[in-house]
Amino acid sequence: MKRFTNAIFSTGIISCLVFATSVSALDEKMHAQLDELKSAAIHSNLSYDIIESLTTEVGPRMVGTPAEKKSVEWAVAKMKSLGFDKVWTEESQAPDWQRGELKVSLLAPFNHNLVALSLGNSVGTDTAPIEAQIAHFRDLDALKAADAQTLKGKIAYVAFAMERRKDGSGYGEAVGARVSGAAVAAEKGAVAFVMRSVGTDSHRFAHTGVMRYKDDSKQIPALALSNPDADLLENALKRNQPVTMGITSTASGTLKETVTIANVIGEFTGSEQPDQVVTLGAHLDSWDVGTGAIDDGIGVGITLAAVNHISTMAQRPKRTIRVILFAAEEIGLLGAKDYVARHKNNMDNHIIGAEWDFGNGTIYKLAPGMGENALVEIRKFAEYLAPMGVEMASTNNAKGQSDMSLLGEAGQPAVNFYPDGSDYFDYHHTENDTLDKVNQEALKINTAIYTTFAWYAANSGVDFRK
Amino acid sequence: MKRFTNAIFSTGIISCLVFATSVSALDEKMHAQLDELKSAAIHSNLSYDIIESLTTEVGPRMVGTPAEKKSVEWAVAKMKSLGFDKVWTEESQAPDWQRGELKVSLLAPFNHNLVALSLGNSVGTDTAPIEAQIAHFRDLDALKAADAQTLKGKIAYVAFAMERRKDGSGYGEAVGARVSGAAVAAEKGAVAFVMRSVGTDSHRFAHTGVMRYKDDSKQIPALALSNPDADLLENALKRNQPVTMGITSTASGTLKETVTIANVIGEFTGSEQPDQVVTLGAHLDSWDVGTGAIDDGIGVGITLAAVNHISTMAQRPKRTIRVILFAAEEIGLLGAKDYVARHKNNMDNHIIGAEWDFGNGTIYKLAPGMGENALVEIRKFAEYLAPMGVEMASTNNAKGQSDMSLLGEAGQPAVNFYPDGSDYFDYHHTENDTLDKVNQEALKINTAIYTTFAWYAANSGVDFRK
Repeated sequence: MKRFTNAIFSTGIISCLVFATSVSALDEKMHAQLDELKSAAIHSNLSYDIIESLTTEVGPRMVGTPAEKKSVEWAVAKMKSLGFDKVWTEESQAPDWQRGELKVSLLAPFNHNLVALSLGNSVGTDTAPIEAQIAHFRDLDALKAADAQTLKGKIAYVAFAMERRKDGSGYGEAVGARVSGAAVAAEKGAVAFVMRSVGTDSHRFAHTGVMRYKDDSKQIPALALSNPDADLLENALKRNQPVTMGITSTASGTLKETVTIANVIGEFTGSEQPDQVVTLGAHLDSWDVGTGAIDDGIGVGITLAAVNHISTMAQRPKRTIRVILFAAEEIGLLGAKDYVARHKNNMDNHIIGAEWDFGNGTIYKLAPGMGENALVEIRKFAEYLAPMGVEMASTNNAKGQSDMSLLGEAGQPAVNFYPDGSDYFDYHHTENDTLDKVNQEALKINTAIYTTFAWYAANSGVDFRK
Repeated sequence: MKRFTNAIFSTGIISCLVFATSVSALDEKMHAQLDELKSAAIHSNLSYDIIESLTTEVGPRMVGTPAEKKSVEWAVAKMKSLGFDKVWTEESQAPDWQRGELKVSLLAPFNHNLVALSLGNSVGTDTAPIEAQIAHFRDLDALKAADAQTLKGKIAYVAFAMERRKDGSGYGEAVGARVSGAAVAAEKGAVAFVMRSVGTDSHRFAHTGVMRYKDDSKQIPALALSNPDADLLENALKRNQPVTMGITSTASGTLKETVTIANVIGEFTGSEQPDQVVTLGAHLDSWDVGTGAIDDGIGVGITLAAVNHISTMAQRPKRTIRVILFAAEEIGLLGAKDYVARHKNNMDNHIIGAEWDFGNGTIYKLAPGMGENALVEIRKFAEYLAPMGVEMASTNNAKGQSDMSLLGEAGQPAVNFYPDGSDYFDYHHTENDTLDKVNQEALKINTAIYTTFAWYAANSGVDFRK
């Protein structure tokens, strides 16, 4: 909040300094346009209202659910109502998985109902519940090192706790167990795989997320306990008595029939180089447990609001601005894969892109991934953002975040905007990812940054590949 | 944390000041004994370990459940292991209620599963689910003012949101709707009563708690939504379209057969006036959804640890210290009622009492309820606590908190210790009331305060009635 206030009140002074030192970068006209857009975004509730609409009128929108189809209709209608010129969908196929019901209990030495969620793609318990002893592992490496005989007929439990960090890097250290833990455990004879949730909160919400079996290995149920329930299990294990757990799950495993997914794409057409597109990305799908306000309702709100703010300017941007609301990000960037496959012959027209898929914090860093000559130009834009607390990274290897990383691999230059992600994994993939968690002040600042970025990229004439 | 550190490091200096100004109050010997006990409590994990044991080995312990019976056995064994001389139970009868299963959905204009809990004593939905339109009320008074015709066939919804305050006084303003809202709504023809949870958090946990029907009114299902789900409902209502909700509940209502409950009482016998008892109270029962770490595992931990610390002193206290772990507090102080009925002829021997049933904060105030002469003496003890951040209230009307209030009404002098309760109603009566929420540093300080209080009351020779 403090930073926000300072940014607003000091804009006049600091932007004059910036102007004085970089008059050749952002000319006076561009500077005034960016100021106009920034002010519009900072004084508008539009991005929040879009998130409110999505989470209230659609809610959770997991691939394979009716609500996911409804979200596509919602997005098409919302883009049209916000002033996009062209709106279309691009359909493809995705595997289907149904969560079903899950009951997890501690059976011995004490009896407790435990809060848990099946991991995405997990199979269920078939005909009979599983009741088995827990084999306790510190982390995935310890599980990998276990002898096969020690897991036969047991439930493998991995206790690793994710660390809270501003850049969210604790996720990378923890998520491996979620993705591959069940496959490793199954190879060693385990009958189920249980882990401490990949999350930084200490509330009784389990964190779901995608997992994978190996093609040739046995498929065993895979689930995550809430952090307090993992604590309880570990306190029971400290008693040095056998600890047994019961699991009943009707999770479907990956189903044979695929479902149709759709990227929703909207454009605000450029006035001079309409074939050159600046892309803003977010993902429209969510997990099924919360309403997906943070992941990734915020991205939907920021990108759609950015185009609406730009549409109110006296003149159109020179290049086209394209918002891509990707499908099926949560189960492996499937919408982004389809987008790249479908547009591979015109990736050269993708001038630069940025995604928003990291929640609630205020942006503190702009990291470029572009040609060396373009770096000079993006630094001028970064200087414009400096009074809002944004620094430019010294590296030049950004490939785009989340879905947009696949476009980056296909050659699209990128800017990665980094928000403070300290609280992101408190809500990530939980029932608790709801509208009330949205930080409305940070959202306004971040919307202002994406709006001005899109305008700058579409009007500066920079070739970001050079 | 800061206050804690200061208290420890400044004890030497400040206690000398106290000693210099109040040499007649706490003599040197008493002062040294209190310091010894304070140090023991501050450097011990015992109260935490007791809570860990209760929540891990027993867990939730709602009246009428097997775990509640197990908690009585646990408490008897724990008291004996901690050095209590006499331990016994006093059984009585309580009404039984079973939560059953609850499913709540928004059906129109949007479809959502909602997080909700039945209120204690609520009936279920009998043979068929309820599907009805929501009638929206700001608060209980607005519901009371409604015309009967407006509620016929509808679900009454009360939106009142509890305020967060240090003294927890927002609870009193909000809880009326929980207790009597369903009775009011039923009289006006409503088919169900739904409210925003009485709680200060914004997590997807509903807060349960007891409700009452009027003897002569129709019994309708009563439930509370989590705060984020209440937000969602209210955002749907803002669309000015009819909002309908579906409720399926197998809650039992109050059952005809009663269940046996038991206060668990333990004493450390006084050396000189064993018939005079200083009472420390907490309640052993909890709601069924969390593990009751905060409500009231902390009270169990503090009071049991206090006696254990006292049992390690070179001499016994002159008066007896009695810990009463009350039964069935959550459904109307039923254990306390039985205690007062059973001990009414020897209440004069109850010298003074204090309860702990307000969670996690550090104590900042001592409020007396005693004879005017005794006030001078308790002020000396309050001065001893002053370096730990405790002020003495200017009033003298404390009757005891929670269960202990009934002993206060029956004539027992009281001290009420007030902790910072700002976060108490984040966890109160939710699934999220678990061990990890316990503030271990505050717990040590509060244990030190209760331990020194019990010692002071048992050894000062003060008649707190005079």
